[in-house]
Amino acid sequence: MSQQGVTPQSEDFSRWYTDVVQKADLADYSPVRGCMIIKPYGYELWEAVKGGLDSRFKATGHRNAYFPLFIPESFLKKEAEHVEGFSPELAVVTIGGGKELEEPLVVRPTSETIIGWAFQKWIQSHRDLPLLINQWANVVRWELRTRLFLRTMEFLWQEGHTAHATHEDALEETMRMLGVYADFAINEAAIPVIQGRKSQQERFAGALASYSIEAMMRDRKALQSGTSHDLGQNFARAFDIQFTDENNELQHCWTTSWGLSTRMVGAIVMTHGDDQGLRLPPNVAPIQVVIVPIARKAEELAVVTGAVNRLAPLLREAGIRVHVDDRENLSPGFKYNDWEMRGVPLRMEIGPKDVAKNSVALARRDVPGREGKSFVPQDGLVNTVREMLDTIQANLFQQAADFRDSHLHEVTGSYDEFLDVLEDEWALSWFCGSAECEQKVKEDASAVSRCFPLEQPHPGQAGKCIICGGDADEMAYFAKAY
Amino acid sequence: MSQQGVTPQSEDFSRWYTDVVQKADLADYSPVRGCMIIKPYGYELWEAVKGGLDSRFKATGHRNAYFPLFIPESFLKKEAEHVEGFSPELAVVTIGGGKELEEPLVVRPTSETIIGWAFQKWIQSHRDLPLLINQWANVVRWELRTRLFLRTMEFLWQEGHTAHATHEDALEETMRMLGVYADFAINEAAIPVIQGRKSQQERFAGALASYSIEAMMRDRKALQSGTSHDLGQNFARAFDIQFTDENNELQHCWTTSWGLSTRMVGAIVMTHGDDQGLRLPPNVAPIQVVIVPIARKAEELAVVTGAVNRLAPLLREAGIRVHVDDRENLSPGFKYNDWEMRGVPLRMEIGPKDVAKNSVALARRDVPGREGKSFVPQDGLVNTVREMLDTIQANLFQQAADFRDSHLHEVTGSYDEFLDVLEDEWALSWFCGSAECEQKVKEDASAVSRCFPLEQPHPGQAGKCIICGGDADEMAYFAKAY
Repeated sequence: MSQQGVTPQSEDFSRWYTDVVQKADLADYSPVRGCMIIKPYGYELWEAVKGGLDSRFKATGHRNAYFPLFIPESFLKKEAEHVEGFSPELAVVTIGGGKELEEPLVVRPTSETIIGWAFQKWIQSHRDLPLLINQWANVVRWELRTRLFLRTMEFLWQEGHTAHATHEDALEETMRMLGVYADFAINEAAIPVIQGRKSQQERFAGALASYSIEAMMRDRKALQSGTSHDLGQNFARAFDIQFTDENNELQHCWTTSWGLSTRMVGAIVMTHGDDQGLRLPPNVAPIQVVIVPIARKAEELAVVTGAVNRLAPLLREAGIRVHVDDRENLSPGFKYNDWEMRGVPLRMEIGPKDVAKNSVALARRDVPGREGKSFVPQDGLVNTVREMLDTIQANLFQQAADFRDSHLHEVTGSYDEFLDVLEDEWALSWFCGSAECEQKVKEDASAVSRCFPLEQPHPGQAGKCIICGGDADEMAYFAKAY
Repeated sequence: MSQQGVTPQSEDFSRWYTDVVQKADLADYSPVRGCMIIKPYGYELWEAVKGGLDSRFKATGHRNAYFPLFIPESFLKKEAEHVEGFSPELAVVTIGGGKELEEPLVVRPTSETIIGWAFQKWIQSHRDLPLLINQWANVVRWELRTRLFLRTMEFLWQEGHTAHATHEDALEETMRMLGVYADFAINEAAIPVIQGRKSQQERFAGALASYSIEAMMRDRKALQSGTSHDLGQNFARAFDIQFTDENNELQHCWTTSWGLSTRMVGAIVMTHGDDQGLRLPPNVAPIQVVIVPIARKAEELAVVTGAVNRLAPLLREAGIRVHVDDRENLSPGFKYNDWEMRGVPLRMEIGPKDVAKNSVALARRDVPGREGKSFVPQDGLVNTVREMLDTIQANLFQQAADFRDSHLHEVTGSYDEFLDVLEDEWALSWFCGSAECEQKVKEDASAVSRCFPLEQPHPGQAGKCIICGGDADEMAYFAKAY
């Protein structure tokens, strides 16, 4: 029940987020600190994300598999940077079947190591390459400061792991999957993400280079929404993943990994939501159209129900996700608020007058009030609804893109100007990429480099680092971030 | 690569099973004792199981959600039988983020307790009932003697959890979901399962009554393949799951739980497999038709490839799962053996002569040799293939049903006769249900009661327990079991 409003975004964005996630029934806190319960409506949103990604993974030749939840502690130590990066975040099983274990088992924080072990067994020849595997799984990283969907101790994700004969192939895969994430985010989740390369400081523990899609939330903070890693031969060396090439010589593979998690649900909430609650892009909305029958008397109800029972199946057969809200103990006004909170893109109202006129009323979630409401004939309803859903999908993307663009600033002037922008917005500036400069921005502005965007605004040119004034080949985005 | 044969079933069924699972690339051992790696082909089979069940769950009004992997140790202790049943099997996290935990966290062996906690929060009124939830998840039970898919420390499953206002409703749900499992097993996995109630000794820890589907494997052992539990008010009392009824009185809910796991993959292997490897029912086969192009020279290859490139998309568009085996370095004979090992129901061979005659050769996996091979016209191929897949699906079920029926014996004579049957087959006998009798059979025949079948052969009648001679209202199946 979502009848009390949420904290306005302008008042306290963080509370707005928590309010919406709970009132829209996406998720709830759990009795285990740091873990969340994903409620049915939130899980359906995650299923839409899964479905959109899984079909793209399969279309690009990947196959799903499943690897153990537990990883021997010694495995993590085989790649030096990897163990350093993940050690502080581990949950460790020390007792099994009532007995203390000889070697503790780590609950996977990510699976490069155990999948590396399997790849070493599975790969012999260049004919076995590329090996393109994906896993849908839960992972655990011990977090003290958690937020529903954005940062939880346990989360759900997919992790792709691939092995290739050459660095060129591996890099191509890394970029392909970054592109798949961007394609999903833009075309399904309606989030105008920026693709780019992370700085050396911000890359994955054990990678040569990490790439990400970065999204701007409604509070203008950045959210890293998916990452793709060029692991070079680091894990192949650590786990002896070798193949005999066409000249019968033994070589180490080049591997990649890439992941996207339930965090994407948080990204959808914080990209599109407003003070009335969620606004879900039709392509990922568990319910695309909610039908609210309106009737005061029993005769009216019979007539209206007849129309609903005719129209709802028509829409469903056309592949539109429809829910009929026939709860008897609630007023239409209550229901409207309820479904607005849950972000259903389109509401269809049918009363006795509509039935008489052979029409229905449609109310768009993305356009508030009268402006978003139209009365349309029941004839051709499937097409009308389809077109309106497409319009809503496009409009949510456009609104998010406009919002993002109005808060992105190319800053090539002074460091002070740069800091001013970072107070509240994103800066795109020349950046030398050094750890010192990154650290300085962190201290001065509580902001970090988000990425060197693949689309550089001044390709081929060079400039001076906005922080230290040293030579810089590329511009990077800087922002406060989740 | 599966060119070496498998151990014949008649020689050593257990080795046959392990050979097939590995050679057909379903699963592999992992470096973590007791955990397995599910390889892509095995995972695709599991995805088919998931898909078949998930759509049935949704059609019966259930919604998916996700609950934490970790459960506070104290939760398990709230239901006395439950903790007693699961304590010896727990994996326990004692260290998190580098520190010893104040309260250890148990890795879920099943989720009645933590979901009970959530239900207590979510349910207030009779209007919130029934609450019908399902979770797809991994669970961990510390096992020392493990077998791929059948018994592993970590396994994948779904667990349904529901709450109801009356015992009648809960029992109806328990039986409905048992029926869903049986429907899936029979109509998709082609396994002729028997539905029944477990004895009090064999029920789930904390349940009033447990029901199961029981399948007979090719070695005549029983495999419990899915369970549905009437939990009464046991967990509702332990976790204060209460609702106000229509008279505004506070009542405890009646809950159910039901689960089916990756064990089903093992059931499919051991119900249908033969000495050439897997035989997969078309409805769950990741690949329904494998096309093997046959060409000796480059000109032939061009002609054959042309036909394949025309026919494969036709079949795919009709929703048939097709794989083209165009590997260049392998002979047709090698490929035939390979796909037989993997149990693909139908093989389509296309050579230059077939192209000339506008025909293809189809070879059925369920009918060996020449008898299973036919030459059919390319015209109408989609229908021909569809019908043949239906025939194979029906034939695999019939073969399994015949096998089962020929090894089931109603035994109402002496206890010695009963023990004789249990050497190698299943006995259906009057059973008083007592723990003493159950224990005696275990000791004398290494067999256990499988279930009191819902379909009793002599309804309304009573008899004398085959073990103790006491009064018995029902007959039960007894068998050796996995």
